[in-house]
Amino acid sequence: MILLHNARYLVTCDPHDTVLENSSLVIHDTKIIDLGPAKEIKNRYPQAQLIDLTDQLVMPGLINLHTHLPMTLLRGVAEGVDLQGFLELVWAEEARIMDVEGTYIGARLGALESILSGTTTALDMYFHPAHNHRGAVEVGLRHVTGPVFFSFPGPDNLTWDQRMDLARAWPQTLSEIGGPYVPPALTPHCPLTVKPEHLRQIGELAIEQGAIITVHTSENIPENDDTIAAHGERPTHLLDVTGILDLKPVLAHGVHLNEAERLLIAAKGGCVAHCPGSNLKLASGAADLVQYREDGITVGLGSDGSSTSNDLDMFAVMRLAANLARLVRSDPAAITSTQIVRSATIDGATALGMADRIGSLEVGKEADVISLALNQPHLVPVHDPFTTIVYSAGRADVRHVFVAGEQVVANRMPTKVGPEEIMSAALGHVQGQNL
Amino acid sequence: MILLHNARYLVTCDPHDTVLENSSLVIHDTKIIDLGPAKEIKNRYPQAQLIDLTDQLVMPGLINLHTHLPMTLLRGVAEGVDLQGFLELVWAEEARIMDVEGTYIGARLGALESILSGTTTALDMYFHPAHNHRGAVEVGLRHVTGPVFFSFPGPDNLTWDQRMDLARAWPQTLSEIGGPYVPPALTPHCPLTVKPEHLRQIGELAIEQGAIITVHTSENIPENDDTIAAHGERPTHLLDVTGILDLKPVLAHGVHLNEAERLLIAAKGGCVAHCPGSNLKLASGAADLVQYREDGITVGLGSDGSSTSNDLDMFAVMRLAANLARLVRSDPAAITSTQIVRSATIDGATALGMADRIGSLEVGKEADVISLALNQPHLVPVHDPFTTIVYSAGRADVRHVFVAGEQVVANRMPTKVGPEEIMSAALGHVQGQNL
Repeated sequence: MILLHNARYLVTCDPHDTVLENSSLVIHDTKIIDLGPAKEIKNRYPQAQLIDLTDQLVMPGLINLHTHLPMTLLRGVAEGVDLQGFLELVWAEEARIMDVEGTYIGARLGALESILSGTTTALDMYFHPAHNHRGAVEVGLRHVTGPVFFSFPGPDNLTWDQRMDLARAWPQTLSEIGGPYVPPALTPHCPLTVKPEHLRQIGELAIEQGAIITVHTSENIPENDDTIAAHGERPTHLLDVTGILDLKPVLAHGVHLNEAERLLIAAKGGCVAHCPGSNLKLASGAADLVQYREDGITVGLGSDGSSTSNDLDMFAVMRLAANLARLVRSDPAAITSTQIVRSATIDGATALGMADRIGSLEVGKEADVISLALNQPHLVPVHDPFTTIVYSAGRADVRHVFVAGEQVVANRMPTKVGPEEIMSAALGHVQGQNL
Repeated sequence: MILLHNARYLVTCDPHDTVLENSSLVIHDTKIIDLGPAKEIKNRYPQAQLIDLTDQLVMPGLINLHTHLPMTLLRGVAEGVDLQGFLELVWAEEARIMDVEGTYIGARLGALESILSGTTTALDMYFHPAHNHRGAVEVGLRHVTGPVFFSFPGPDNLTWDQRMDLARAWPQTLSEIGGPYVPPALTPHCPLTVKPEHLRQIGELAIEQGAIITVHTSENIPENDDTIAAHGERPTHLLDVTGILDLKPVLAHGVHLNEAERLLIAAKGGCVAHCPGSNLKLASGAADLVQYREDGITVGLGSDGSSTSNDLDMFAVMRLAANLARLVRSDPAAITSTQIVRSATIDGATALGMADRIGSLEVGKEADVISLALNQPHLVPVHDPFTTIVYSAGRADVRHVFVAGEQVVANRMPTKVGPEEIMSAALGHVQGQNL
């Protein structure tokens, strides 16, 4: 039993956005079993292992709703290009270094960066999913992933039938690898690169498995145009007619959705992973986060892969999402810091179908918890903890991280893996392969 | 003599954007006296105090071209408001807590945050300039500031004549306070709040003193409209007819400048302090950095005060400026990372009229130098050091900071002041005054 003692703020992200001051939280096994005033809690659990969080802010772990962790090995490779230029450049590099070994090594590096920066859950799309998953789980991340689908051989050189075999076996693979609970996921690349009849097969399998689906959708205008040219329809329509949209998929990016599409997505319970850092860097455009919320779409936040956004910093994503919403709406009150923090926590959990397990600090939920050190010059004074989180705090303020009750970061150091070993394996793989 | 030994990258920001690998830099007194390959330099200066920077990146200190350091005490006070709403709210708070004591305490907090995040020079506008300057200099910042001007009594309750007296004595005040070399500055608030005849007096005094001028200009559209309503002309025209524009002023923000204004500013050698974080947060708009550069305007970067941008993080400003330029131009190649780093270093120095002294790592320049620790998961691998600086690095990666040859940050800790004392004085002042 672990007692997180006397946090200056306990930002719960519960339905009332409750913030407790000078309060504590108790973890038993994988779960949060109590929270309340520091003194009361201390008296109630005299046997618990106490971690003193005086001068720290405690909040739910961040949920990165769209990323490609192994591509951390390709950080900084593609500069000054749009999505299509990026894909051309990166797919060539992937064919060279992103074998099963590179995938595993990159997943570990990406997962390590994630937990150190306060991300406890990531929805991840990449080749060689078992190697990816094993790498991320070893670091301690709650890692939602599954087989990726193209209707042609990708860098992983699989036939369609091989992809489907991998997918059918995925729940079994997940249970063999172990780690914090995650649902199985199926990750078709996008409606341009996966034929409608293949999307339909993925949808049928998802129902069978109870899997969640994530798919790139309308990231930029050429993607929409190319999809119409290839398949006669826009991406969202293809997802609709193939049954995918009925399965509440997480649509990655969703920058260029028209009104009819947005209303359809909302009606069917689809979600959007808003990735402003990647969208601006590739000049894909600016999704109108506030409009999507008004339409009734659940919107979480994502970093995308480090090959486009150059890091996995969800604090930077929160701040950019907040600023971008103000610019897009020409309104300084377009969105509150509280709403942004919810997007990066409980709304992401809702998008993953996991809002009953993670995304807030409530009794009975799994303990995915982070703490931030507040006694630093750039965090003084605090007027509102949500605004501090979004506009002043950063990844380096993260001190402790728990995933499913296990402490995976203690005083900024990972507990399950050695950072030097992971970084040198990454550099060795990149350099050895002469990238 | 200090030898910064064996940096993995030495990013000089010299006219050729030279990057040296495995190289060293030698500081004697206030200046850089040599740089070159690590082994050669080590043999050449056997007596120097050696600081090992293996696995670090060394670059010029960042130049924050627009801020209000003492307003760090007001961090997070104004949320969900535009510029006019902000001013209303903040001026009331200022009248309550920003006395000379609050100014001094706030300046120390803001300067401490600045140096810890790699900023070595700031152009700062605030009341009670001697108290502000003394606070910032004690922390070790190169702090360019001077009297602020309104044509009416501000929170400091001075008459026009008192402001001019303060300004006439300013060079003497600077030399009494001491610290790293800075030119005197005169900081009229904006052409709306300072009458044309007063602007003219400021210009005349600036010529007499060799002072640099900074002034808020066209931050948002209501400011332009209000200026026309009050004085019959747009802000840039008022700066032109009063002679200010001939003095190559640093125009803070400059978000809403029309083409004629931009060309006039360029022709006269005026500069813009681009503050995208503050501009987006207040929904003031998005300045077109690339256009300004094409017009021939020198553009540096600023954080603005923590009362609007919520922190003084110039790494966040660089990244946002790079992303925003791509969005505004719908072009992923709108601006390179190299150009962004130059904006935050040598271009800022040019705007301050100090390009012969600071802004790059070259023999004969003053040693304003920072180092970043590269052996961290979010900075692996490095493909291009400029891209790493803009898109992956952050304030917390800063390890060592030198200003005019003096080490003001060593291993992330300030050397001249105690952070706990500064933070508790700040909290005490804010709370004691019942903000």
